[in-house]
Amino acid sequence: MASKYVDISTIKYFMNNVQELDKILTSERFEDHNIESVDMFIDSVKQFADRELFPYFKEMDESPAHYKDGSINVHQQVERMMKDGGAMGLIAAPFDYDDGGLQLPLLVHTAANYILDAANNHLPGYSGLTTGAAELIIEFASKELKEKYTPKMLSGEWGGTMCLTEPQAGSSLSDIITKATPTNEGYYKISGQKIFISGGDHQYAENIVHLLLARIEGAPAGTKGISLFVVPKMRLDETGNLLPNDVTTVADFEKMGQKGYCTTHLGFGDEDNCHGYLVGDENKGLHYMFLMMNGARIAVGRTASAIASGAYYASLEYAKERPQGRKLSSDGKKDLNEKQSLIIEHPDVRRMLMLQKAMVEGSMNLIFKAAKYFDLQHNSPDEQDRHKYHTLLEMIIPVVKTYPSEAGIYSINNGLQVLGGYGFCSDFILQQYYRDIRICSIYEGTTGIQSQDLLGRKMILNNGEGARLLMEEISSTINEAKEYNELREWGLCLDNKLKETQKILFHLIPFATKGDYERFLADASVFMEFLSLVLVGWSWLEIGVASKRSIITGDKSHETDFFESKLDTLEYFYAYELPKTIGLSEVILHPSSITIKTDKKTIS
Amino acid sequence: MASKYVDISTIKYFMNNVQELDKILTSERFEDHNIESVDMFIDSVKQFADRELFPYFKEMDESPAHYKDGSINVHQQVERMMKDGGAMGLIAAPFDYDDGGLQLPLLVHTAANYILDAANNHLPGYSGLTTGAAELIIEFASKELKEKYTPKMLSGEWGGTMCLTEPQAGSSLSDIITKATPTNEGYYKISGQKIFISGGDHQYAENIVHLLLARIEGAPAGTKGISLFVVPKMRLDETGNLLPNDVTTVADFEKMGQKGYCTTHLGFGDEDNCHGYLVGDENKGLHYMFLMMNGARIAVGRTASAIASGAYYASLEYAKERPQGRKLSSDGKKDLNEKQSLIIEHPDVRRMLMLQKAMVEGSMNLIFKAAKYFDLQHNSPDEQDRHKYHTLLEMIIPVVKTYPSEAGIYSINNGLQVLGGYGFCSDFILQQYYRDIRICSIYEGTTGIQSQDLLGRKMILNNGEGARLLMEEISSTINEAKEYNELREWGLCLDNKLKETQKILFHLIPFATKGDYERFLADASVFMEFLSLVLVGWSWLEIGVASKRSIITGDKSHETDFFESKLDTLEYFYAYELPKTIGLSEVILHPSSITIKTDKKTIS
Repeated sequence: MASKYVDISTIKYFMNNVQELDKILTSERFEDHNIESVDMFIDSVKQFADRELFPYFKEMDESPAHYKDGSINVHQQVERMMKDGGAMGLIAAPFDYDDGGLQLPLLVHTAANYILDAANNHLPGYSGLTTGAAELIIEFASKELKEKYTPKMLSGEWGGTMCLTEPQAGSSLSDIITKATPTNEGYYKISGQKIFISGGDHQYAENIVHLLLARIEGAPAGTKGISLFVVPKMRLDETGNLLPNDVTTVADFEKMGQKGYCTTHLGFGDEDNCHGYLVGDENKGLHYMFLMMNGARIAVGRTASAIASGAYYASLEYAKERPQGRKLSSDGKKDLNEKQSLIIEHPDVRRMLMLQKAMVEGSMNLIFKAAKYFDLQHNSPDEQDRHKYHTLLEMIIPVVKTYPSEAGIYSINNGLQVLGGYGFCSDFILQQYYRDIRICSIYEGTTGIQSQDLLGRKMILNNGEGARLLMEEISSTINEAKEYNELREWGLCLDNKLKETQKILFHLIPFATKGDYERFLADASVFMEFLSLVLVGWSWLEIGVASKRSIITGDKSHETDFFESKLDTLEYFYAYELPKTIGLSEVILHPSSITIKTDKKTIS
Repeated sequence: MASKYVDISTIKYFMNNVQELDKILTSERFEDHNIESVDMFIDSVKQFADRELFPYFKEMDESPAHYKDGSINVHQQVERMMKDGGAMGLIAAPFDYDDGGLQLPLLVHTAANYILDAANNHLPGYSGLTTGAAELIIEFASKELKEKYTPKMLSGEWGGTMCLTEPQAGSSLSDIITKATPTNEGYYKISGQKIFISGGDHQYAENIVHLLLARIEGAPAGTKGISLFVVPKMRLDETGNLLPNDVTTVADFEKMGQKGYCTTHLGFGDEDNCHGYLVGDENKGLHYMFLMMNGARIAVGRTASAIASGAYYASLEYAKERPQGRKLSSDGKKDLNEKQSLIIEHPDVRRMLMLQKAMVEGSMNLIFKAAKYFDLQHNSPDEQDRHKYHTLLEMIIPVVKTYPSEAGIYSINNGLQVLGGYGFCSDFILQQYYRDIRICSIYEGTTGIQSQDLLGRKMILNNGEGARLLMEEISSTINEAKEYNELREWGLCLDNKLKETQKILFHLIPFATKGDYERFLADASVFMEFLSLVLVGWSWLEIGVASKRSIITGDKSHETDFFESKLDTLEYFYAYELPKTIGLSEVILHPSSITIKTDKKTIS
């Protein structure tokens, strides 16, 4: 097992310097926090992760969560994650004091959870979904529901889940059929089946509070007829006793990775005795759920980037210790009398390591930026600013979720390759990271769905206001970069990529205008790949500007090597990754409609 | 479990029509075979695979080969693969009648093994390595060794392995230290440890014949001091009895995939009683081994492409059966009153399916071409032709091994994505293909090693003769394509890619001339990715030319849909995959040397 899974200096530098946490902390809401107190919080999270998460990472893969006799057995560290993590405020962090929270910025919460995910991605989902479920209750449910259910969720005694997917309704939520029948007693009777429910049941939670989408009898078809309910596994009677609520654990799903994080199949109302409590108004369930979706998507991107971080450091450690082969001399031969080189000295291995570093850190900074936008959206004093940052978050969110998930697979694939045959062996950890990350491009809307959202909604958001705002933000970083000789070239390069983006949009949007939506969106996934590289190029340029400034101003927070290494990785990204946009652009601009031909047997 | 894993029509069309098996069969060596007899052989292999391999594919993953009490236990189908497969001639197929073989072309043997690999990649390695080990004995060892050891190998009663890797010597074979001490009794005493030995031990083989690389005491350092030995697990005494030969099964390696194909750690001579028999001359071991390497690399590429074939058909079957979502109408909305579409109707799903088909079939045809070159290298009556086809095989072999392995990962990744959340679940087979294929880019020389070979040796082979011959072959296909209106565009496109290839070589080779080998080879893996797309583009153009001819000549061997589907997939490859060369070319031509900087802490 490797010894390092995340670079805490990089986390703090991106949070404090690149994303300028201090500017967020000026908000009244965060007046009790400052850079030092946040620093201590992050350090304590790192210690917690070192002690309670990382040492159990392999064990949780080898002893998966499993179904037995009607319930799910999970690893004992789930209890530590929930209860000790709860006590540290890891579940409650983003909430108001009034609701039992710590009023920490999402940027800080994201940095903290990045550490947890990198240490052991099988655990933070339990607390993260509990935060998410509590957030829906706090934001949209009655005071009574909030007071009854959230305190024990925030303390980690109870779990929380999101129950969306049904066997016939995965990406297509409009087809949900779980039924809610009104009664005259303040609750609905729920009946239906939900699948793929993460953290849906386990032996360490006295209760689990499900936030469930269902259709009230007679509701309109499709997404406009879906309501949101609190459906606890154990409901509270009037005297505060817990009664079974007719929620059945039907089975769990065995998976190729993330095996310690249980994925369950739940049945509701088999005995016609499952009570659900409406959250907010009828038929607004999907609306409420989607207001939480940006946070959930930041979390998935964060998990993916963090898994790739763990893999990067494991492969780096191996590369620094493993001798194999020799450097080539000027006649192209190897001197056998020399002892073997460490593999980190071979350029191809260095390429595989830099590729990982570029993806891990480039995506980490982009994720932190999304969290910053979230904080500014909710806490800027100015209404226009709130709108601006909300719009910017909407624009980048599909990439924030997708790039770390997709590039993370590629990144870990390279990390595994660094180990050669050992990378394929269970005794080494790379193969686990490789399996674990694979779920991220499926969670919370697949890459296909994110790509439709990116091109089909976001690129034309508010008649192009969103795209314009995003371009302005990127251009502003380019202008900063142009002030430094060393960065000017990369700034000009990114500027060209923005022009190419516009060219692509001018090519594609007319298809939508003409009503040919199928053609408009056919290559949305290719556009996602293209724009992801542009946005991560932007992320790296931003890191470059901050690093250059740190060097010039004699920032003593880190060694000069630290900043130089960031500039080298920026160069790597611009030399090896960003050029791939050229081919992708050609793919998008090509005249072929081969994927939308259905008139003949193209595929067989 | 899906029901289809390979398209037998495509296998036969590529073998018979695109690679023109009939021309190979004109050789005297193959005079007993004809298209009809080969057809029957392929059909019988398919039936064998349907009956004995495919039904056990998942089971072999779930009950892995494992070490117990000094030996390895494997699934019972290993016995069927070896003994029934042996009886069918699957081990002996390529050998001469005199050596107990069937004198079948490698092209036919490759097509047959493609079917087996696609059905269940955990099994054909056992027979394949036995063929390889027997081949070394038959080609280079004494008549006595051949007569003693090969008959029971070809019948499948005994297994065979290749023992190359040692704990300190993986990619770097010059560092092998396993020792061979001469005696006066016609054998050497062997002592050492070998790891990652596929098929190294199991309960169904009465004996296993290891072909082992070792260093005779006093031999020169490096690759020039390595000799090849036959080291059986049980040696034959003079009366033909089997005696234990001091070969110990130390352990097996648990892996993330291909779990039914055992990977062992073997010890030789722990009790100073391990006899090894020299094959050919002293110190020529690596030379002999590398004469077999092209065959071994064709086999790895074949396995990878075949695994991706299995995955493709599994995801295609799912896409044809799974309803989800609806088609977009001209206002970009979905009509909820319509029933759900099958997911194969969504362009993004079609893209993921065509991507798989393009990679699977494009690589299959390239692999078959390599096997054809092998046959022509060994059986052309004309010496110059033999040299030509040997050179062509040398040129394409790194891509034949690497493209299916690397693109296969990408292909199956897309297959898994077609299934959404189910793709990640163990109940569905995609996750197994995803895990299984990952070893292929490591086997028989990693992608890094293949890339160094491609750029560092092959591109400058015989002072450029190799590159010239390859370009001529590709140009000849381009000229054929230009005869058809529908193909002309793709021909011109591939022609441009050839010019781009030359531009890249003119840029890179001067680094070698100047003695800067490190810079010359630093981006070899990127060049591999570039040239792979060009060669698979060529493969598709060749398929296109054959299909177009079949349509025009009214070829009744298949429905017109079959040929049209090939032309559509050609279009897909040229519209979606080949353009990626543009970005890769820019990466290679960039002036950055970031991966060869070692003077500062770039990577941390």
